[in-house]
Order: sequence, then C-alpha cells, then structure tokens
Amino acid sequence: MQRIIAAPCGSRPKPRPAINPVRKRYICLPFCLHKNVAAEACIKLCRLKSRFRYDGLMRTKILPTLAFSIVFLLSGHAPETGNAQQAGPHLMPMPRSVELRPGRLSMDESFSVRLTGHRDARVSGAALRFLERLEKKTGIPLSRFTIGDPASATLEINCIGAGEPVQSAGADESYTLDVADQNARLTAPSPIGILRGLETLLQLVDLDDESFFMPAVRIHDEPRFRWRGLLIDVSRHWEPAEVIKRNLDAMAAVKMNVFHWHLSDDQGFRMESKAFPRLHQLGSEGKYYTQAEVKEIIAYARERGIRVIPEFDMPGHTTAILVAYPELAGAPGPYQIERFWGVFDPCMDPSSQKTYSFLDSFIGEMAKIFPDEYFHIGGDEVNGRQWNASPKIQAFKKQNKLKDNAALQAYFNRRLQKILAKHGKKMIGWDEILHPDLPKSVMIQSWRGISYLAGSGRRGYSGVLSNGYYLDAMRPASFHYGVDPLGKEATALSDEEKSRILGGEACMWAEFITPENIDSRIWPRTAAIAERLWSPAEINDVPDMYRRLAYVDRELSFLGLQHHAGSFKMLRRMTGDAFIAPLRQFAELLKPAGLGSRVKLRKYSSLMPLNRMADAVLPESDAARKFEDLVNEALAAQSGSPDGLRSVREQLSAWRYTARALKAALEQSFLLEEIGPAAEMIGDLTTLGFEAAEYLETRRKPQEEWIGKAAPVLEQAEKPHAEMLIAIGAPIKKLVEAASALP
Amino acid sequence: MQRIIAAPCGSRPKPRPAINPVRKRYICLPFCLHKNVAAEACIKLCRLKSRFRYDGLMRTKILPTLAFSIVFLLSGHAPETGNAQQAGPHLMPMPRSVELRPGRLSMDESFSVRLTGHRDARVSGAALRFLERLEKKTGIPLSRFTIGDPASATLEINCIGAGEPVQSAGADESYTLDVADQNARLTAPSPIGILRGLETLLQLVDLDDESFFMPAVRIHDEPRFRWRGLLIDVSRHWEPAEVIKRNLDAMAAVKMNVFHWHLSDDQGFRMESKAFPRLHQLGSEGKYYTQAEVKEIIAYARERGIRVIPEFDMPGHTTAILVAYPELAGAPGPYQIERFWGVFDPCMDPSSQKTYSFLDSFIGEMAKIFPDEYFHIGGDEVNGRQWNASPKIQAFKKQNKLKDNAALQAYFNRRLQKILAKHGKKMIGWDEILHPDLPKSVMIQSWRGISYLAGSGRRGYSGVLSNGYYLDAMRPASFHYGVDPLGKEATALSDEEKSRILGGEACMWAEFITPENIDSRIWPRTAAIAERLWSPAEINDVPDMYRRLAYVDRELSFLGLQHHAGSFKMLRRMTGDAFIAPLRQFAELLKPAGLGSRVKLRKYSSLMPLNRMADAVLPESDAARKFEDLVNEALAAQSGSPDGLRSVREQLSAWRYTARALKAALEQSFLLEEIGPAAEMIGDLTTLGFEAAEYLETRRKPQEEWIGKAAPVLEQAEKPHAEMLIAIGAPIKKLVEAASALP
Repeated sequence: MQRIIAAPCGSRPKPRPAINPVRKRYICLPFCLHKNVAAEACIKLCRLKSRFRYDGLMRTKILPTLAFSIVFLLSGHAPETGNAQQAGPHLMPMPRSVELRPGRLSMDESFSVRLTGHRDARVSGAALRFLERLEKKTGIPLSRFTIGDPASATLEINCIGAGEPVQSAGADESYTLDVADQNARLTAPSPIGILRGLETLLQLVDLDDESFFMPAVRIHDEPRFRWRGLLIDVSRHWEPAEVIKRNLDAMAAVKMNVFHWHLSDDQGFRMESKAFPRLHQLGSEGKYYTQAEVKEIIAYARERGIRVIPEFDMPGHTTAILVAYPELAGAPGPYQIERFWGVFDPCMDPSSQKTYSFLDSFIGEMAKIFPDEYFHIGGDEVNGRQWNASPKIQAFKKQNKLKDNAALQAYFNRRLQKILAKHGKKMIGWDEILHPDLPKSVMIQSWRGISYLAGSGRRGYSGVLSNGYYLDAMRPASFHYGVDPLGKEATALSDEEKSRILGGEACMWAEFITPENIDSRIWPRTAAIAERLWSPAEINDVPDMYRRLAYVDRELSFLGLQHHAGSFKMLRRMTGDAFIAPLRQFAELLKPAGLGSRVKLRKYSSLMPLNRMADAVLPESDAARKFEDLVNEALAAQSGSPDGLRSVREQLSAWRYTARALKAALEQSFLLEEIGPAAEMIGDLTTLGFEAAEYLETRRKPQEEWIGKAAPVLEQAEKPHAEMLIAIGAPIKKLVEAASALP
Repeated sequence: MQRIIAAPCGSRPKPRPAINPVRKRYICLPFCLHKNVAAEACIKLCRLKSRFRYDGLMRTKILPTLAFSIVFLLSGHAPETGNAQQAGPHLMPMPRSVELRPGRLSMDESFSVRLTGHRDARVSGAALRFLERLEKKTGIPLSRFTIGDPASATLEINCIGAGEPVQSAGADESYTLDVADQNARLTAPSPIGILRGLETLLQLVDLDDESFFMPAVRIHDEPRFRWRGLLIDVSRHWEPAEVIKRNLDAMAAVKMNVFHWHLSDDQGFRMESKAFPRLHQLGSEGKYYTQAEVKEIIAYARERGIRVIPEFDMPGHTTAILVAYPELAGAPGPYQIERFWGVFDPCMDPSSQKTYSFLDSFIGEMAKIFPDEYFHIGGDEVNGRQWNASPKIQAFKKQNKLKDNAALQAYFNRRLQKILAKHGKKMIGWDEILHPDLPKSVMIQSWRGISYLAGSGRRGYSGVLSNGYYLDAMRPASFHYGVDPLGKEATALSDEEKSRILGGEACMWAEFITPENIDSRIWPRTAAIAERLWSPAEINDVPDMYRRLAYVDRELSFLGLQHHAGSFKMLRRMTGDAFIAPLRQFAELLKPAGLGSRVKLRKYSSLMPLNRMADAVLPESDAARKFEDLVNEALAAQSGSPDGLRSVREQLSAWRYTARALKAALEQSFLLEEIGPAAEMIGDLTTLGFEAAEYLETRRKPQEEWIGKAAPVLEQAEKPHAEMLIAIGAPIKKLVEAASALP
C-alpha cells in the first residue's frame, strides 16, 4: 500500500517510492481532494465547496511520535467528485487512529445488521437506534432490516464481553471499526465500546454522486480521559425531562459519558423525595422530577453509555431545602425560594445532629435511586455569615477546635463522607471541599483552575476540570478547545499524579437558560470540549475543528437538538411576522454577554422572561469567524489583497444595509427596541471598516482626523449593547489599524 | 361609537358624522395603519413592513347585507407604530363577526385565568394548554398562573353547558369573545365553543413597541359548515402516533373538527384487532396502532374538539385484509401486501356469508373503540374483475337479480349498513356507495365533485365535499380556497337540500408522503380550506387570505409542526454539508408535480425512498407568488413601470446566479444530479425573463428571432423536471408576451 502524505493544496508533490501499484493522488487538506488539478482551480473548488478560505488549510504536521495517525489511502475506487468526507473524515471527536483505505461501502435498502458475541440489551437497543438514525439520515426506509440475520449481513456488531453492570469511571470504551467494500465490522470488548463505535459509524455515512456510503476505513479508538461530563443546572431555571433526554442524545453523539445533574440550589429543589416530600413540594413550585422520571432518565442515559451523577449542593446553596426544613439551617427561618443570582447566606447547620440525621435518611433514599458510585455534594461558596452569627455554632467550633469556617466545613464534609460511604457512595465536590482530613477516595471537581486540579492531584486526590469549560461565559468553541486538563500547569506532575486527573466537565449553569435556548448554549460548543477530552492531545488544529464542528452541528439538528430551531423561533417571536430574514442576519453579528457581565448590567430574577435578543443570539457567530478569516486573508498579502479587500467591503456593505434596514422593525417591537443602539453602532462600525478597506485598496493613507474618529467607535464597539457584544469588532479593528499604518 | 370604513392607503377620507368623540383615523388596509401620513410614506412603510405590494391592498367591499362584519374602531389608545394586527386581525379562519374597539389588553406575567360556569375537564385542560402556548408565544413564564382564581382574573372563561358526551356533527361550536383594556371574557354554550374561542384568543396575541397585547375586540363566531375534516391515509405510507397528534394540534388551531383516519387499504392494515389479530400481524409489517394508542389518539382529539372517524375501505382496496383472511376474497389467495399505487383486483366476496360474519365481528370490535356516530366504509374503486371472474358470484348475482356490479356492491352496502346500525353506527362512504336502496341516514363523501354532492343532496342524502380538497394534487392554497361546497353547482338546490351539504374534508393520500414531509403537504394549505369551511362565504379575498396564512404558517411551526423544518432537513441531507443556502433558495423556484403526474413519470413502490428533491420542495412557493405580484405590478402601469421592471430584473438575475452556482453542488450528490436539467432550464428561463424585462424597460421591440427562441423555452418550462414543476414559469411567460407585444 502506498501512503501519501497530505500536502497543502497546489504544492508540488514530492515523489515517494511506490510500495504497491495503488494510484497516487495528491491532496489538499482538509478542504478538498482534487486529483491533478492546478492549484488555482483547486483553491477555487475548495472555496466553493467548503466556504472556508484557502489560508485556513491545515498545515500538515508530521508528528515525530505518532500517538495517533490519520492516513489517507486513495485508489481509483475513491469518488472523483468532492464531498465533505474527502476533506478528511468529519469525525468528532476524532478517533485515536483513522486509516482511510481504498474503496467504499455503498449503502442502500439492502443494508443489514448482525449481532454477534455477547448478547446485551444495550447493544441491540443501540443497533435499532442506529438503524432509525440511518433511516433519518438517508431517507431510505430501513425499518425492515433484520437484526441477527445469520447470513452475511452488511454490518457485523461484535460485542465481546458483558461490561460492568453499573458503568464506572473505569469502563472500557474502546472499539475497532473496519469498513470495507462489501461489509463493515465493529468490535468492542464491552457494550460501551459498541455504543461509541456506532456513533463513529454514523458520522462516517456520507453521500456523493453515486450513493450514500461509508469510506473504507480502519479505526481503532479509545478515549484519552475517562471522565467526560456535562453539568446541567436545573435549579435556577427548570428543564423538563424531554430537554434532558435530547441533551443525553447529543452527549452520546460526541461520546461524553457523565451527566452531572445539578438538582438542588437556592432557587429550587428539583427531585421528588418520598422520605422528605416537603423538599419538592415546597422547594420546587411544582417543577421537579418524579422518581419515576429520574429512573427513566437514568435508564435512558445508561442505554447511551452515560453515567448519571446527582448533585445536591450543601451546606451552602441550600435555600430551597431550608424552605422545606428550616430547622436544618444555621439561623431561624422561615426561608423563601431565592429569586436572584449570587451567593446567599442560608446554609445548613453543621453543628446540629438534626442535619446529619436528615442527610443520612435523604442520602439513603437517593443512593437507592442513583446507581452511580459517585454522589456530588457541591460544597462550594459557603459565605459563612449564618455560622458567624450563631453563638451555638461558634461554641461548637470552639469545642471541636475548628479554627475557622473552612475547618467547620471540613468537619461537615467528613461526616457527610461517612454517611455517603455507609450508603455505598464515593464523594465528589467542588474545589472548596479539599481538606487533608478527607480520605483519598474523595474526588474534586475544579471550577477554580488547572493549578487547583494539579494541586489536588499532587495531594493524592482524583479530580476533573471544569474551569475553562463554563458554557455560560459565552466563549467560542476554540477557547474551550484549548483548555486541556493536562495542560501547561500540569506538566510538572508525575505520571501517577497525572493519572489522577480523570477528565473534565462542561458546565451549563442556568441563570440565563430556558428550555428554549439551553440547546444553543450547550451545542455545538460542547462537542469541541468532548473532543478535547476524548481525542489525543495532538488533535488540536482549530480550523479543522471548526470544519468538523459544522458537521456535528448539522447532525445534532438531525438528532432533534433545538440549538438552531429555538433561536430562530425566538427571533420570529420578536419581529411579529416581518423582517425575519434581516433580523436573522443581524443576529449573526452579535453574541450574548457572558454571565458575569449580564448580572452586572441588570438585576435579574428567576421570574423575568428570557425572551430578549441576548437570550436568542448564538454564543458564537460563524459569520463573524468567517469574516475574520476573510480579513486575515486580505491583510496577509504584502500590501493587501485587492480581491480580498473587495470581498471585505462587499460583506461590510451588506451588513451595513441590513443594520439600517432593520431600524424601522426594531422600533415596532418592544423586545427589539433596546437593540437600536447596537444597530446604530454596527452601522458606524461597518462604515468604518468599509472606509478602512477602501484606504487599503487604494493604498491611500487616511487623514489623522479619520484615525482620531475611528478610535472611539472601536472602543464603543467593545462594550456590551443590550447585554450583547458585537461579534465583528476585532476584525474591523484590524482593518482600521492596517489602514492607519499605511505609509 | 364612531365607525370608520377602511379606505385604501392615502385615499381622501370622506367625513362622516361622529357619533361619539373617539378620535378618527384613516387607515390603509390590510397592510398598515398609519395615522395622518402622506400616501407616499404610508405606501413605503407598508411595503417595508409587509413585503407585500401596494397593488395587493384589499379593496374594501361594503356588502349590502352584512352576513359578517369587520369593523375597525380606533382611538388614541391604539399603538402608533405598525404591527401585523394593525393590518387587520391575523385571524384564520376569520370569525363571523369581528368588531375592533378602542384599546388593548396588555399581557405580562400578571396575566391570569378564571374558569366559571360548567366545570369540564376539557375546558380546564384547554385553559392549561392555552397558557403553555401563551408562554411559548411570548417567552413570559406563565406557568404560575392560577386557574380558578376567584378574584378578578385577566381572562374569564365561561362555559355555560356540558355539551354532548360524544361530540356529534351537530355540536354547538359558537363562542363570544370580549377583550377590553383590563380583562377579557370568553363565553360559549359548550366546551367545544370554548376550545374554538381559545384558538382565536391565541391568534389575537401580538406584540408592538409597548408590550405583548390583545387588541380590544368583540367577536361572535360560529362555523358556516359543521363538518370540517382532514383525511390522513396511513396505509400507503405509515405515520406514527406522534405525527397524527401534531396534525390534530394543527387541525384544532384552525378549528377543524373531523379527523378521518384512513386505516386500511391495499398497502397496509394499520389497526390492531384483538378479534382478528392476523389483520395487523400479517397486514401491516409491524406498522400499526395498538388499540391503546388509538384510544389515546381519540382522547387527544376529543380534548381538542375533534371527532375521529375510522375508515376501513371495503369491498375494494382490501388487499391487506385479504393477506390475513384470503377466504373473504372473491378469488382464491394467497395475497401479498400491495407495493404499488393504483386500483387493484383483490376484493371481498359479497356473495359469501363468511364476509358478513367477519364484518359483524370486526365492526362490533371497532365500534366499541371508535365512539363517533359515523363509521366510514370506503366503498370506492371496485374494479369488479374478481366478481366477473367468479362463477359463484355470477350465480349469486343472477339469483338475487342484481343486474350489474354496482347493484352487487349496493347489496353488499345494504348488508353492511345493517351491521353498522346493529352496532350503533351510521354509514359514510365515497360517492360510489350512493344507491337508492340505502336509507337516508347514509352519508356520502364526494371525491368526484360538487355536482355529485349536490345530486346526493337532492336525493335526500347528507354529504361532504372532498373533490377540490385533494392535497396530493399539489395545488396552491388559493385554488382550494376557491372551492366552496355550496359553490356554483349547488345554487339550484333548495335550502333544505343545501342543508344536507354538511361541509368538506381535505384529503392527504399517502403515495408520496412520509413522516418527514407529511406536514409540509398538509400545512399551511389546509388552513385555507379550514377557513373556507368555517368562515362566511363572503370572506374570499385571496391576497388577504395569504397575508393571514403566512401568520398561521408561523404559528403552526411554534405548535411543533414540521412543515418547514422537515423540508429543510431533507435539503440538508441532499447537499452533504455545503450549499444549503443556495439550494434552499433554488428549492423555492420548484414545486412537486401532483400525484397524477408523478405516477406517470416513474413506477413507484411503497418501498422506494422518498428522499428526493420532489419530496422535499414545498407544494406552494411563496417566492414565486410574490414574484408574480411583482411582475403584475410592473406590467400594470400603462407602459410598464421602470422601477418595477428593474426589481424584476434584479430578482431574475439573483435566481440565475443561484441556479448557475448550484451546478457544481448538484453533480456532487446522487440525490441532486437529476435536477441538473431543471437548474439549466431555470438558467434559460430567468435569462429570457431578464431580457424581456430589459426590452420592456427600454421600450425596444425584440426581434422575431428572439421571440421565436422564447417559445420552446417557455414550453419546456411547463413540463415536469425530475417530477417537479417550475414555479416561476407563468410570470416569465407574461413578461415575454408583454415584450413580444411591444409596438
């Protein structure tokens, strides 16, 4: 077989000795695969096809030690025309090893599946779902497929062993996938690996000018980190079971394996308790999960290879619990469900036996419902005010030689840990619980940072990273993608210490989410986090990540996620009937401000509608990112590319037109009025960018006056407007700077 | 109160004596409501807002006898800025009487509901759903609303009586709605009227620069026809329960009241039978509704004021039944599930006692499940071949003096009718069952035409119209809107005869539908049929219908209908990742060929994928209709409007660009390859239109050669391309004809 190293589009191929007579072809990665075409034509086709830019082409890296390998082997069998797969497989997370081979497996109504090896309900269930999704993906009626056909089925699913009865953090998730011309084979040591492999298989399915097909490929895959989680806070805003289920579907699609269910906080207690029914009766305003629903969701997650870890945050963040049982608090009640965001005083009384009796019974009840070995007790953000104000608690501290509130909380946690152990659970909590008195079985979830995580690793505790994965910060996928639990700050750790860093968890806190916009806040960005946690560290090319993310984005919509549909509905609501097209275009120029910024700009409560523009626009603007690429390309040439600058001007002109045209619409809707100034600002900003591009195109130095006027516009553009940020400020600033620097 | 007659935009108001001091305002209908602005400005604003054209403005008709009334009363309280409601209420179906009053009811978190009068689970259920939908529509968290608040709630829902235990065709559906500044009141004699009124209320909710609100209004409403149905064929292609449920939601939204469930045909028997389990076991390939599901759907429909009428087509269209019970057939079996479309030979044996014994037991079983008074026995398209070929049946005919197969079928129907009567059901069937021997309680559904319906009315039979409401013909909403069950052919009937025409039913036959595209084939067009059947005959302004249909279209998406989302998914599937924007634009230039045309173009079977462009494009192109308006406007002026012609040219140029740009994409997808010629044709056609507009603009007569070349292009454009029709052919033909006629 002839291995061909990917070369940038149009570059001269270096001849290599042919090992076998497979026909050679030189390829442009990751955007095209045109055989023997001139560089010019290739670039043009690439652009046309991918709508990405030439300068985004992946620079091929030949890694000295191939911890992973992607090898493209192409023969005359490979399709001539372009399709997404030819730009490199659109797999996400990228498997550990992908070897593309000559040939393809065409898919039509004759496609069939056969299960071999260990019989497992999860495997047959997953095979059925696979076929259903294949049917949706292709539109081919596949429902008549036989499962268990003893003859030569197209796809053999071979599950070797039973796996664990309750999935643990140590579960084997590996699988091997072979796709050849006539058939495919998926093998895994356990059902979980089969689940992961089926997701890869689905991502491989593509269409070209001949048919639906999977490229011939050999994949061996296993995760880099064993803990790849998503936290959803259902306390601050409620999310019904169907929202949880579709997000579990999405998690499974990108091979995540821990659903961290933040069920209780100051703003609501969301779990039915039969032992303490006042918890959900008084703490939820009717918005809670019944135990039957919870069990159904746990089963749903298990079928998808996802563990469910409940979090009942304590001793702080417990207002909703204390509404029901004020006698557990550090100060007399009564308490009311918290309506605002922040850190509040109500806190459990760690000096009272009542507290531990309650916790013993409550955790006993919950431990029977949640099968996972871990149980999350929160433990964050205790402000200590109630403890300081209580003579009884102060006396208790003195009596027990607890020098400060941290020591008091550690005391609480030791007792809590014993209760958990009694009920067969290991404790996990946020950074703050870390205390040398706790046994090493306790696990730390770090919201503070990699250095804290590394610190707990050094002290012998396992941990997972959440700092850098907070979705409510509204950072781009590329930011999260760059956060590695074993990043720079962990390099000093020994291998053993490193092994204690189990992975990470994306966190979806619920101050600004509703069932309508939650999907858009989680997806597709979380897919980039999922890849960081699954794939080899060397898979880190940002443009290629975005190329594949766009594919996953589409697949998630097919799967039923509402990340685009929800946003669109919200925009339509705001306009009444008209103006949806320009409003949609305009929305692409904005992104919501992060949590930290929004809570400063307005006093929010949980009762306020989240139906404004800031709640609808997507966290990351593809249009803005592409525009930034366009600007970079235009400015990359020595003296600016005239073609590129013209494209930049055309784009800016179109946006300026949109912003101006919208003005009347904005005034007609009380939900849109507040973005008038942002529209104004975008009008100014696009004008400025347009003029800068003109100066650059004509190589005419702008007058000092123009430069002077530009500064405040650019500055203004960096500020929040109606709790949103303008997404195209940075590239326009670049244009202005380049124009100002003209000789 | 001062009544102001709507006047075209910018026309001079005629002074009328003021009856009270409410401030007068002159209004432009149906597109704007600008106070005291110059005609020019008003037109401009109208255009901007509605994207409709000035020439589409509704011509005000003062009807001599006001069978209905829409009165606009405006005061200083009315909002100053435009919104959709101001263009006339966007209600569909339009109520019998709508009186807009001064003022508005603002809606925010304080909105509350109170139920008075008769207590009914349907009313309280509907009130809850109303609140949930209000929450979705506004984004305001409304879930904490109290129902039954004894104090002054915002909305009082007053249900006077219990209504019928089983909804009949004679159910009272009337209601009265009063919306004032501070509160609203909905009153109805029965729960059904409350359901209808709540849908109207939801349609009234709008937003403007102040808030969400309902305009102050007094509405009295009741339907013109008592039978407003939708047939869904689940035999030729299967539709799961969730598809049926969302379509019931949509039916309720437009006040339809009969779901006609075509459960059995040659291609499948879709109902579980416990008495005859082979029916669903052998007749459905696993795709059938369990009795529990059917009961759930009937309950779901009842909660929405919809009757469910099952159809088990017989004695023809029974292949799937005969697969299970060949002994009931007119010829020996065995039979196989039919895979193709058409009229087939297999038919029940009307001469055999076995047939009637089976029917007695089967109908006995079904009669207990379906509570409706009517039971549909099909009765259409018996080709008689099996009967002619059977000596036994021939002998039976002779013995019973049945001169032909029609008489034999009438004999079968008489016996069937007695069985139905025994089980408490009235018989309904297609045209063919009409025979003087049948009792007058039998009802006719006419697929053949209004004249047949009128004929059966004259003979004393009740009937409903389906001819003209076949959705698979892929006709525009305006076509169906123009079909009136009491149209021209019924004018000669006496009032009593007319009263026998109970209404109509839209029919969704399933040769070319799947769960993915069914919604787009039914909606929004069926809303226009719903209006024809509910609203006064005088409500027949087509542009205004389309204005309101656009609103309903959006509301249906909010309700969960997949008529746009499904089509979009299918287009995305075809392109792989890229090109979705131009493909979507291109799709707007096409519409699927009707059933009759498609079955001639290709031999279809029920196993073939319906994943091609013809399955994805929408039955009616809004873009094409708007373009036609644009062309009409441009050609209306004496010598053509230069501005209008320029707009026409710009539009054609954009489309031509799209068609050309798509070419490469089409070649890359085997699902799109076949539309290459259509793209080519649209390229030619738009070029032709562009040139014609240019001739018209420059008033330059085209050469004979150009005219000669145009003819074959126009002719070609009228033919199907890949089982689709080009939607913009007609207006381009108009342009060419106008150019050719230049002096």
